[in-house]
Amino acid sequence: MTSSIDLNSDVGESFGAYRLGDDAKVLRSVTSANVACGFHAGDPAVMRATVRLARDAGVAVGAHPGFPDLVGFGRRDLNASPSEVEDLVLYQIGALAAIARSEGIALAHVKPHGALYNMAARDRKMADAIARAIRSFDPELVLFALPGTQLLEAGRAASLQVAAEGFADRAYAPDGSLASRLLPGAVIHDAEEVVRRSLRMVRDGEVVATDGSVLAFRVDTLCVHGDTAGAASLTRLLREGLERSGVAVRRVAPASNRT
Amino acid sequence: MTSSIDLNSDVGESFGAYRLGDDAKVLRSVTSANVACGFHAGDPAVMRATVRLARDAGVAVGAHPGFPDLVGFGRRDLNASPSEVEDLVLYQIGALAAIARSEGIALAHVKPHGALYNMAARDRKMADAIARAIRSFDPELVLFALPGTQLLEAGRAASLQVAAEGFADRAYAPDGSLASRLLPGAVIHDAEEVVRRSLRMVRDGEVVATDGSVLAFRVDTLCVHGDTAGAASLTRLLREGLERSGVAVRRVAPASNRT
Amino acid sequence: MTSSIDLNSDVGESFGAYRLGDDAKVLRSVTSANVACGFHAGDPAVMRATVRLARDAGVAVGAHPGFPDLVGFGRRDLNASPSEVEDLVLYQIGALAAIARSEGIALAHVKPHGALYNMAARDRKMADAIARAIRSFDPELVLFALPGTQLLEAGRAASLQVAAEGFADRAYAPDGSLASRLLPGAVIHDAEEVVRRSLRMVRDGEVVATDGSVLAFRVDTLCVHGDTAGAASLTRLLREGLERSGVAVRRVAPASNRT
Amino acid sequence: MTSSIDLNSDVGESFGAYRLGDDAKVLRSVTSANVACGFHAGDPAVMRATVRLARDAGVAVGAHPGFPDLVGFGRRDLNASPSEVEDLVLYQIGALAAIARSEGIALAHVKPHGALYNMAARDRKMADAIARAIRSFDPELVLFALPGTQLLEAGRAASLQVAAEGFADRAYAPDGSLASRLLPGAVIHDAEEVVRRSLRMVRDGEVVATDGSVLAFRVDTLCVHGDTAGAASLTRLLREGLERSGVAVRRVAPASNRT
Repeated sequence: MTSSIDLNSDVGESFGAYRLGDDAKVLRSVTSANVACGFHAGDPAVMRATVRLARDAGVAVGAHPGFPDLVGFGRRDLNASPSEVEDLVLYQIGALAAIARSEGIALAHVKPHGALYNMAARDRKMADAIARAIRSFDPELVLFALPGTQLLEAGRAASLQVAAEGFADRAYAPDGSLASRLLPGAVIHDAEEVVRRSLRMVRDGEVVATDGSVLAFRVDTLCVHGDTAGAASLTRLLREGLERSGVAVRRVAPASNRT
Repeated sequence: MTSSIDLNSDVGESFGAYRLGDDAKVLRSVTSANVACGFHAGDPAVMRATVRLARDAGVAVGAHPGFPDLVGFGRRDLNASPSEVEDLVLYQIGALAAIARSEGIALAHVKPHGALYNMAARDRKMADAIARAIRSFDPELVLFALPGTQLLEAGRAASLQVAAEGFADRAYAPDGSLASRLLPGAVIHDAEEVVRRSLRMVRDGEVVATDGSVLAFRVDTLCVHGDTAGAASLTRLLREGLERSGVAVRRVAPASNRT
Repeated sequence: MTSSIDLNSDVGESFGAYRLGDDAKVLRSVTSANVACGFHAGDPAVMRATVRLARDAGVAVGAHPGFPDLVGFGRRDLNASPSEVEDLVLYQIGALAAIARSEGIALAHVKPHGALYNMAARDRKMADAIARAIRSFDPELVLFALPGTQLLEAGRAASLQVAAEGFADRAYAPDGSLASRLLPGAVIHDAEEVVRRSLRMVRDGEVVATDGSVLAFRVDTLCVHGDTAGAASLTRLLREGLERSGVAVRRVAPASNRT
Repeated sequence: MTSSIDLNSDVGESFGAYRLGDDAKVLRSVTSANVACGFHAGDPAVMRATVRLARDAGVAVGAHPGFPDLVGFGRRDLNASPSEVEDLVLYQIGALAAIARSEGIALAHVKPHGALYNMAARDRKMADAIARAIRSFDPELVLFALPGTQLLEAGRAASLQVAAEGFADRAYAPDGSLASRLLPGAVIHDAEEVVRRSLRMVRDGEVVATDGSVLAFRVDTLCVHGDTAGAASLTRLLREGLERSGVAVRRVAPASNRT
């Protein structure tokens, strides 16, 4: 069905003296970079270095805002109010956009991180808050969200361009949500399996859930995680596998020279 | 000499459950608001509320970035590198600018806070870093800095519009620097004295230092602190005193509708 | 029934330049002080100052650990794992105990704060984690918890001394939980009403819920909030009201000279 | 001269999702472990895991308190007041001691980290503050400090047991201070050179400074950094080299069963 796909990865997740991920390598294979914004990971210096890497690799830069939970890496649900969520998302987008602007580029998309992404998938008020934050900053930013979720709906309702996101290396529960990382098999490490699943998402618009059921699952962008061991090579193999099968890998958002 | 002056105040210094200052009242009397950006004070929700208050009062909104030292309120010297300073200033400007944009206004100026302001007064590399951050975000932003300092020079060297800042309620050391808050008499609470000193700065371009010497001291903007007891009434009395003496109180930066 | 009661209050909730509560006054009327430990409120300097105030007032000092959520004041649910909760509670108890030791006193009790208190009331695994942290530090510490909750049960199961806590100035839902602060009437400001409800809890072992139903509700300690306007005078009026009615106000934990 | 020496290493410097150092391996070769306490590195869960590793390896556990500067890894000077330093050191010692106690051990020593260590080497008021914090918590704790510094003197003046610390893999300036990490050659990576310098410190009580001058330099403990690449093997080689030359490697502080 789809003959092209965007590849995205979460990058810029180092912090101070702490290194995480091999961003320079991962950025050679993806077309969209989701850059952490200092709340769950990243700091101003890491953000600038990451933006430069992405820019020089010709990769679209997006914001990857998260909860203010560095020790939990933004992976723990926090019952922030919609208003708090709107403001902290906007804050993070603005901070990254300023750094990107000083490096000569504009942001192309926004993908909430971790618990914020997962809570907004289920909670319409939180989803609407995120969509409001994005829209008020720049209505041309593309919102990345899981298919069939409140977040995707909220983006559409706010007239944002949305990109349905599949996870190339993650298992799915029968309801289409990501299987918890705490479960065995939740993260798929086998490159061939990752390519096979990705091709099925891209070409057939479906994914096999943990119970074996086949879910309709159209995607505009595929995420490969940058913080797992071997992420860089997995990403490269995925891109090669997709292209070998005739799928063009290109950014979901149009190249932008807005600054 | 000067027949008009800008009045500025540091606002938005509340944080979470903690309230500091009486911003709503202070903003009735000043023409420029320096809004804390979440590092030494302020949080995304406080920033939005403060931007709204300032906008509705017709007060110019500027960024008031500080060191990442909430428990020290940004008042403790931190030997961050110039590169770290550039990035953390840019981050904070961007975060506030995004919130301001969502409220329909653009930032007009930048005034570093506390130890960052004082270190940059003495340290040219830090000053240049701040000027670079501002310039790369928006070269039309006005930089507020103490007269005769490295920060003011750095702003000029970067072709920024600069505003020389006097402190209406602070004592000055013979070298023109602010007398330490730890010294008795460093903060002036008597309203008449504050008005008298301010008029001398504005009209005569001079200030009397702690040793009685008279310093040449031309200023474009006067700061009144918002976090001291009675700040709101002091600010009101200062404005009235200035206007009664024929000094027009108006913003240093031209009104901007850029967003 | 009971002829004596402990009065406790949350204190030490200032942070850096931010002041919250009138601890010096509140500590004149209570017998147990729950001191914030730097995660949701408080900092090392505030902790020391608060411990001194409590010690000099002859008030028992306890730890008031919370989630690491300063901007949310520890009031937002955070799905930390039981293991994370055990460690962060232990960390905070130890930090406060060290400061107390340097001021010549030992801790007498532990009362979790805000969302941690409320989540542990419902979630046995979190409650057990808190009880383990306390027990491993000092099995003589008294655990304060809401009657009928998992936290109280966990304390008993861990062979800790527990104190059932009533809230003098808060409304109760029909299930015995605290009515949400977001609801009107959740916080009771009328001193006479506070005294009347407190006497009924202390002498009759019951409280009237928001739907008018009467709940059995035996308490060993009563909390009065220190951070609301008028808290100090409310606390004083409550103590006077209790004593006038023949209820002795004394600490729940035996005086301890352990250091 | 000395026929025995303590080997220490900074450990527990991971944080949340971030890993730093190979503590399990390093702890096989050292006799004292300096455990980060959550301000510049470390978190409650990391602290517990590290204490367990050290305990199981029979290594003495000490506190490694630092400035509250996670993004700067505690390496940036912060002009905190002596009173602030005393309280933040005490806070961190207490937090770690509680976790150690829950794992069945007592702390044996304290070694300030990074900028705190270096500032206290020069600044007697800061040094006294650290000594006061240690003494008020447990006067039997051994203070690790650079020979000839204010910190060592402050420890002695406070009647603490002190251990003069040499750095096996760091260059020294002619005044006996550590050469800045920003200078080339400041960190020595060659194992043979590290062993040679260490033997000279231990047996001859001297070290060769960066200008070639020979400094008198008696040491009770040698530090090997745990966060550099190859730290674990360097530490092992150092221990083997020392023992091969007849130097006994044993903890500076007597084994303690106090809890």
